[in-house]
Amino acid sequence: MGEMGEEEIISSKALPMKGGDGPYSYTKNSYCQRVALDNIKEMINEAIAENLDIKHLSPISNTFCIADLGCSVGPNTFTSMNDIMEATVLKYHSEGLSSNLPEFHVFFNDHTANDFNTLFTSLPPDRQYFAAGVPGSFYIRLFPKASLHFVHSSFALHYLSKLPKEITDKNSPAYNKGKISYPTSSKEVVEAYASQFSKDFESFLNFRAEELVCGGLMVLIMTGIPDGSSRFQAIGATLDVLGYCLMDMAKMGLVSEAKVDSFNFPVYSPFRREVEELLERNRCFSVERFELVTRTRDVAATDVQAVTKHARAVTEEMIKQRFGSEIIDELYERVFQKLQEFPQFLDGIFKRSTQLFVVLKRQAMD
Amino acid sequence: MGEMGEEEIISSKALPMKGGDGPYSYTKNSYCQRVALDNIKEMINEAIAENLDIKHLSPISNTFCIADLGCSVGPNTFTSMNDIMEATVLKYHSEGLSSNLPEFHVFFNDHTANDFNTLFTSLPPDRQYFAAGVPGSFYIRLFPKASLHFVHSSFALHYLSKLPKEITDKNSPAYNKGKISYPTSSKEVVEAYASQFSKDFESFLNFRAEELVCGGLMVLIMTGIPDGSSRFQAIGATLDVLGYCLMDMAKMGLVSEAKVDSFNFPVYSPFRREVEELLERNRCFSVERFELVTRTRDVAATDVQAVTKHARAVTEEMIKQRFGSEIIDELYERVFQKLQEFPQFLDGIFKRSTQLFVVLKRQAMD
Repeated sequence: MGEMGEEEIISSKALPMKGGDGPYSYTKNSYCQRVALDNIKEMINEAIAENLDIKHLSPISNTFCIADLGCSVGPNTFTSMNDIMEATVLKYHSEGLSSNLPEFHVFFNDHTANDFNTLFTSLPPDRQYFAAGVPGSFYIRLFPKASLHFVHSSFALHYLSKLPKEITDKNSPAYNKGKISYPTSSKEVVEAYASQFSKDFESFLNFRAEELVCGGLMVLIMTGIPDGSSRFQAIGATLDVLGYCLMDMAKMGLVSEAKVDSFNFPVYSPFRREVEELLERNRCFSVERFELVTRTRDVAATDVQAVTKHARAVTEEMIKQRFGSEIIDELYERVFQKLQEFPQFLDGIFKRSTQLFVVLKRQAMD
Repeated sequence: MGEMGEEEIISSKALPMKGGDGPYSYTKNSYCQRVALDNIKEMINEAIAENLDIKHLSPISNTFCIADLGCSVGPNTFTSMNDIMEATVLKYHSEGLSSNLPEFHVFFNDHTANDFNTLFTSLPPDRQYFAAGVPGSFYIRLFPKASLHFVHSSFALHYLSKLPKEITDKNSPAYNKGKISYPTSSKEVVEAYASQFSKDFESFLNFRAEELVCGGLMVLIMTGIPDGSSRFQAIGATLDVLGYCLMDMAKMGLVSEAKVDSFNFPVYSPFRREVEELLERNRCFSVERFELVTRTRDVAATDVQAVTKHARAVTEEMIKQRFGSEIIDELYERVFQKLQEFPQFLDGIFKRSTQLFVVLKRQAMD
């Protein structure tokens, strides 16, 4: 499985080129990628039009229940939920079931530490659904049995339920000394991360299988990298660069090296085939669609400042909790310098940004 | 309807005595009252044992859905939800349905401005139900049709959906000049408040009727005062005393009198018969139980400081929003002085604290 499948919509032009291509030459390519990302909404519409079997979905007292897992505070989740609702309404109309339109119940889920107050305050006032917030990790059961008709999760499944223990165990071959992520670490470290991802993703599928009604759909948009490519890309690359800078600071005595050694981000980007294999092994869902698509970028490839800012937005909180707020400004200034000094780092973070788009259907119990 | 019904469990000893009884003589009586309040849990257990017809409740995919409306941030709501769940499980066992035990889905509702982050963080880790938060006023629809089996609301229905317009209209006979509540105001003011309560309570019943399954139960614990008694008691009295102090400060130029005139708390304690009549008029629910019970007090009757503190806890936020935080300390110091100076005020706030306990069952549609 070292090559890309036929159904991948990522163009060969958008695949990472070998060697230290500077960020400048990549600008045009990133415009090409931008086309692909706009497809996500269209792909969800298609999934509902083609795969949602509303006549056989056993309706729960005429309510259609949707959950967004890892919703954060909006506004993206509101857009997604609205898109799903509208596509479902369309499907009812197209099947001649206009008079049977359900009411929609939308469940917004994220960790208990998520800012639900902000989420609730930002709920669109003109929403056409009943809203509820569900606090808790999606690696446990969150909903009653067979209570959901549609599950959506976007940019969330790269967070592991926990860090594999051996990563911070000095006596383990998987001890991740001097690093805070796995892309350039030893085989043992990478395997520990990969194995945790496998367990977590299987749990996720099994719990969702209990919560979804038969015929219910699940759309997952998750980080995933092309088979055979370098692991130094996207989130992993960002964290690795951050780790280099932390170690530079440790060598200068500005942070404790032991602290860096024992700190790791519980984040993992699987290869496409890893997800494919886990889905094949699972008997509860049929795979209706499985594609590697190019992820949207909200900054230009040449804008080191913007890339740094984005990296900071995603990582600052966890760094603060571990190392204190006093090192923050210097750390991200160092990230900025590092990215300017080594364009291949910027390239790694920026260029190879792909996402898996997966549509699953809950099968009848055996 | 000027007298108390036979089913009232409030003892005649606990009824307010005429004249200016000082707070000191009341201590013993308040211990008598404490007995009654412990009954609430027992009364809910009875309601479920006697009125919950689980064999005919149409189960939603074997999930039993409970909503707490006006839940605040806990911990009271967790205790109540747990009590309801346990009583329901008991009922299943006692009907020989132990093998059919449902899963429980608990919905915690309060205004969008409620601190759901704190609520979610405080959720009991060992809870035996799936939890969700539902932001929004309970004077609108909050849930899909026929999606709830049990609705609970405690100490919340005295909040009106809005202040009646005429209360702050200088040209209306119901203009509430120099006051922030209604107990000692003109007949027109009291009627405007009462009429808003009627409308709100009717809306509440109608929306809940849509959300509850047939046979579903609703337990309401709400402020209510004995027919024919003074309106100067409980919450109303607290707000009136607060109003007197604000007006004292206005006369000294410390706050704007116009601001006091245009500020009113949207809070109302109905007479027992008002609620009784509204329930009789409603065709969706049968009244399974309707009682006036004595409400628990968490402070001693003699402790002016504690009463002031409690009054402050309940009112400070709204006062701050309207008058700014700089007047707060002086205002509540004045409340403290006023209560020491006029024991009849303390008496009004403290002694006559009654609550309505109502059990309703959703009837089949006509």
